[in-house]
Amino acid sequence: MTLSAQKIQELSVFAGDLATAAAEVTLKHFRAPIDIDNKLGDAGFDPVTLADRGAEEVIRAAIEAKYPDHAIVGEEYGVKDTGSPFEWVLDPIDGTRAFISGLPTWGTLIGLKYEGVPLIGVIDQPYLKERYVGWTSGASLNGKPIKTRACKSLSSATLSTTDSDLFDTGDRKIFDRILSEVQLVRYGLDCYAYAILSSGFMDVVMESGLQPYDMMALIPVVRGAGGSATCWSGDAPGESGKLLAVGDTSLAQTILTDIN
Amino acid sequence: MTLSAQKIQELSVFAGDLATAAAEVTLKHFRAPIDIDNKLGDAGFDPVTLADRGAEEVIRAAIEAKYPDHAIVGEEYGVKDTGSPFEWVLDPIDGTRAFISGLPTWGTLIGLKYEGVPLIGVIDQPYLKERYVGWTSGASLNGKPIKTRACKSLSSATLSTTDSDLFDTGDRKIFDRILSEVQLVRYGLDCYAYAILSSGFMDVVMESGLQPYDMMALIPVVRGAGGSATCWSGDAPGESGKLLAVGDTSLAQTILTDIN
Repeated sequence: MTLSAQKIQELSVFAGDLATAAAEVTLKHFRAPIDIDNKLGDAGFDPVTLADRGAEEVIRAAIEAKYPDHAIVGEEYGVKDTGSPFEWVLDPIDGTRAFISGLPTWGTLIGLKYEGVPLIGVIDQPYLKERYVGWTSGASLNGKPIKTRACKSLSSATLSTTDSDLFDTGDRKIFDRILSEVQLVRYGLDCYAYAILSSGFMDVVMESGLQPYDMMALIPVVRGAGGSATCWSGDAPGESGKLLAVGDTSLAQTILTDIN
Repeated sequence: MTLSAQKIQELSVFAGDLATAAAEVTLKHFRAPIDIDNKLGDAGFDPVTLADRGAEEVIRAAIEAKYPDHAIVGEEYGVKDTGSPFEWVLDPIDGTRAFISGLPTWGTLIGLKYEGVPLIGVIDQPYLKERYVGWTSGASLNGKPIKTRACKSLSSATLSTTDSDLFDTGDRKIFDRILSEVQLVRYGLDCYAYAILSSGFMDVVMESGLQPYDMMALIPVVRGAGGSATCWSGDAPGESGKLLAVGDTSLAQTILTDIN
């Protein structure tokens, strides 16, 4: 069933309300003393805080109050499968490492899929008071339209990835080849790189090892702003956890041809 | 000659006024279309913009109007040597790569040396409305005192450097050894890493290849907040261009013993 523009609008506004509710929790803990749990134990460092958990709790509660039949997937509290065509995909704090380091480049990610396809995405950075919203036909920053920029060649492109040490050997080789051709690279930005690309200040973001809750909210923002968001193979992003976002769709074709 | 507290206060306030004047120029160009010149030509990419040049111009003009006898060193317009014991050291936009990528982690650096010693430092981030000021006996963020945090061991430390590819082979080995012992690392932050360390959210920043105008403003902020800012040898930062900033001075001792 096709959704009406009015229904999409209603859901977008609600997604923004969810971000506002989450911000009340996250900002209370940002740059304040906070307990950090390590999800990986002795196997590494994957921090999670009261802020991550608290923010997901308020988002889930708000969805359950307004749309009790909608499905939910969240980083901290897992899957609520209802069989609804609507599925909310949540990462209360994407970039917890930045968050616990006092850096303002984390974000609250709220995605909504309809019949399995990304429909609405919110990247909210409440400390910067920047809310990026994307939907099937547009994207905005604090209500004003945003667009990706033209960039026809890697030689004038700015590339970003959160941590190049996260790639496996094969993916690292591919990333390094693209890296060798670009003008500029920026690291460590998590979701904020996609927000900046969607606003027209970066050109390519390449990541692998992503979970659905890391990706789903980003896709409508990048696409709504005129960019391309695919798996590294060119297919729709999904199980592989590999995401390639490119502001200029013709450059996306060049990169996909190059790496496949 | 020892300066009075009143004189230091007067100069600190003036340094803040310089940052305000620079912000009028930089913010006009941030996230707006801007021409980028490449200082390195075919040899690499070292961007400089109208914003860098314009901001340094207004800072220099304000110093020359109020303290015409003071010496000035700036990234874009070089040295004005007057023989005065006061020397202003300026980097109008530290982190031009972040600036042109739309990222809010650049800063305007205004340092003042007296008789060759760093006296006052300002790290100003006008998009975030964050002004870090340091002097011989304290440091503040927007007028409120800030302090580095306790961190007794590398195993619980957050480390930062702007770009580990900028180290030569020997320095990279040393950095990698420290990196292997810390809990968390953050890249790409330029001066903002020192501001965050001074506010108590990171523990160690290690960089090499710095110019005096990259360093001088940072030192009073880090030291005023209770941290240590030295060359990697433990000497005062200077010609070597290597800066080690540590929030907890006892951890600084551990690191210096380890790497020397």
